[in-house]
Parts: sequence; C-alpha cells; structure tokens
Amino acid sequence: MAHNPDCIFCKIVAGEIPAFKVYEDDQTISFMDINPMQQGHALIIPKQHSENLYATPDETLAAMMSVTRKVATAVNQALAPDGINIVQANGPGAAQSVFHVHFHVLPRKMGDNATLNWGLHPGDMDEISATAEKIKTALEAING
Amino acid sequence: MAHNPDCIFCKIVAGEIPAFKVYEDDQTISFMDINPMQQGHALIIPKQHSENLYATPDETLAAMMSVTRKVATAVNQALAPDGINIVQANGPGAAQSVFHVHFHVLPRKMGDNATLNWGLHPGDMDEISATAEKIKTALEAING
Repeated sequence: MAHNPDCIFCKIVAGEIPAFKVYEDDQTISFMDINPMQQGHALIIPKQHSENLYATPDETLAAMMSVTRKVATAVNQALAPDGINIVQANGPGAAQSVFHVHFHVLPRKMGDNATLNWGLHPGDMDEISATAEKIKTALEAING
Repeated sequence: MAHNPDCIFCKIVAGEIPAFKVYEDDQTISFMDINPMQQGHALIIPKQHSENLYATPDETLAAMMSVTRKVATAVNQALAPDGINIVQANGPGAAQSVFHVHFHVLPRKMGDNATLNWGLHPGDMDEISATAEKIKTALEAING
C-alpha cells in the first residue's frame, strides 16, 4: 500500500493518527470530517494514496463510489437532512486542502447558503463522535 | 433501457432533445450544462434512469466515475482552470433540479466564491458549443 509520509490521510490509513471511522474495507475508509461544514459531514478515501481524481485508477474510484453511496444512504437515514451533496475537489482553486483524493458527503439544510469553499472550522468532538455512532448503526443495517 | 417520459435527461439519451455532447458510450453520456456555473461546466449521466445516488447500482456509478475522471481531465487540459470540483446533488435541499442522477464537472477560478446552489442561469449557446468542441478534442486525445 503506497504510503506518503507527509499525508495526513495516509497516517489515518496507517493508524498513526486517530479518526472517527464509520466504515473500513480492504480498499477504502470512511470517517468524519473534524472540520465539518454541517453535522454528519463524512469523508471517503482510498487506502492507496493518489493526489486527485485525475490520478486515481478507475477500480479505486469504483470502490470509493460504492462506499460513498452506502455512507450517503446511512447519513440520509440517520440524520434526515433536506438533501445531500457529494463533493470532490481538485486543486487549490477548488479548495482542495488534503492532497489525497477524497469524496465529501455533505448533509444540507434548506436555505443554508452552502459554498464550495466552506473553510476549515473545527467541530465539537463529542458531537462528531455521537454522530459517527448514529451513522455506523445505520450503515450496519444497510450492509446487513 | 428504462426511459422516464417526464425526464429531460432521458429525452437527451433518447435523442428527443438536443445536447452539446462531448462523450457517449453504452452506459453513459456527457454533455455541457446549458445553465453553466462557469465556462466548461459539463455533466455525466447514465443512460439508465435512476433518481439519485441512493438508487443507482454500483456498476452504473463505476461507469459514471470513469467517464467523470476522463471529462474532468479533458476540461483541465482544455481550459486550464484553477481547480475542478465534482458535485452530485440528492434532494431539493441539495439543489437537485433534475431527478436523473448526474455528476457535475465544475471548473473553478481562484476567488470565484462559488456556492452549492448556483441557480439556473442560461449560458451563451455559441460559447458553450465552442467550449464543447475544445473538450471533445482533449477527450479524443485522452481516449486515444
């Protein structure tokens, strides 16, 4: 498994730093964004490092999207937002802040005026932990 | 191929209404958004109708993501934006306006203050047509 020593997401994959994980399999991990745009903001990453969408193999993208669909379904069931956006960023102009490809699952509220540059504002760790548990419970029901 | 008679994207798949197509294969079509957030705003849809991410089979998502990677790479090469976001919307709270699952390829400019509810503002058809030709040329080079 390619591991980039300067990459924070590779350190999460390697277990070197903690994360509020909601899902893990051979190819992917899903965990909570600790700088959430909204309650329930989750990320899906491949274990194999690649910088952005352009550099990611189709097989990896397929695995990521299957997990993204499951996590979004679980967030929808667990939190009942007004909608969910999937967002992926490539390059500084798109506000990519970690250069390890990832999909955001972004719960939305009517009238939230969400932007594509939501900034990095640390969330409440207890709230994020409790939300992760709700999402994990919903995911376990989905995955049978 | 499931065809929803009330769905504008199913009508594009069936050839009943025109579109500035940049790519087509057995499972997917990519064409320009005629209400672009930015120059080069393209869409990727499956030919098979499904309402949103939750309802779309993994095989279809894999095909969509492979094409999304190629179209984003072509947009990046043809237009050299400062970044590209991939965005997918589920439900009215996420500003989903067509209920046939689709990925947006959104070229970004530094400081554009892009929102996730960019609204439906018709673009200049000549400009969209010319941009589609540039993206098609780049895609043909990528696909060999």
